[in-house]
Amino acid sequence: MRFCSHCGHPITVRIPDGDNRTRACCDACGTIHYVNPRPVVGTVPVWGEQVLLCRRAIEPRYGKWTLPAGFMEIGETTGDGAIRETLEEAGARVDLGPLFTMIDVPHVHQVHIFFRADLLDTAFAAGTESLDVRLFGEHEIPWEEIAFRTVAATLRHFFADRRRGAFGTHIEAIVAGAPPPADRAVR
Amino acid sequence: MRFCSHCGHPITVRIPDGDNRTRACCDACGTIHYVNPRPVVGTVPVWGEQVLLCRRAIEPRYGKWTLPAGFMEIGETTGDGAIRETLEEAGARVDLGPLFTMIDVPHVHQVHIFFRADLLDTAFAAGTESLDVRLFGEHEIPWEEIAFRTVAATLRHFFADRRRGAFGTHIEAIVAGAPPPADRAVR
Repeated sequence: MRFCSHCGHPITVRIPDGDNRTRACCDACGTIHYVNPRPVVGTVPVWGEQVLLCRRAIEPRYGKWTLPAGFMEIGETTGDGAIRETLEEAGARVDLGPLFTMIDVPHVHQVHIFFRADLLDTAFAAGTESLDVRLFGEHEIPWEEIAFRTVAATLRHFFADRRRGAFGTHIEAIVAGAPPPADRAVR
Repeated sequence: MRFCSHCGHPITVRIPDGDNRTRACCDACGTIHYVNPRPVVGTVPVWGEQVLLCRRAIEPRYGKWTLPAGFMEIGETTGDGAIRETLEEAGARVDLGPLFTMIDVPHVHQVHIFFRADLLDTAFAAGTESLDVRLFGEHEIPWEEIAFRTVAATLRHFFADRRRGAFGTHIEAIVAGAPPPADRAVR
């Protein structure tokens, strides 16, 4: 941010009075521009023993596989957004289930929130942001081709919970630079 | 938003190519300014049978009581932010527990996220954003003086869950204009 989005004046980065961290401040109109992490919302769409994944048609991670998810929009709830992204990216209609994972990704200023969901039918089809949409059994998951670590973590929790017969709610964080958890442990 | 924060040019509100909703677009430098809901993070700080509340020293809801909570900052996790807000607003140090409520507030573009937490000691004190900080038993909660509906909802869930001896994770939404749930049912 270089200019005030309210009045167009160049901004100053400083600690405002009564605050304890630097902000983009406008010394012309007085606006303080706060920046906050953004929620990313999505689903784990389930059909019998299989889970739906989308192959990305956009950067980042073009060609890699992901659960349907995207940035939450103004005016919607987390659940609304998860349903919308599932429809937009996979053409898939779901019955939304419980919150399944909430994974902080502080180095990219995001919180990834996934709900379990039951596919209502198999009349899904790739949206404009997907090259392909497919159902995968646990042993077919392309672990080396998963687009994001939050997606891999969510899938690992899903299959582990299903194996033990009880689904939980998993709250965790992805730390920049840390190696991914051992995928092979739950393959 | 009236000016591009990247180049200072006046923005145009339109639907970008390949998108399906209006955005603040800069026709000079091409930047699309996305706006997303913001996470608010906080705790339910517990000491024995009591819960800690803060009396707000700032608007909105000056003088009303709240759980310690505030906007999540860049570079922190939801849990980090909840611990930080509890320290800043109440001078209270906590051992963070599980996610307790995630409540969408779409009409103000927020998601409120509360964790259960155990106070480490009672050496708490009002921070600059609080007039007072106090421990309340269930029957002392000033229900008519609670600052936000997400806080009232979180407190109701807390006492209801404690009464039945099992804490869950509660995911819900506050709808603009809808009457608050019947407080009296759980007083």
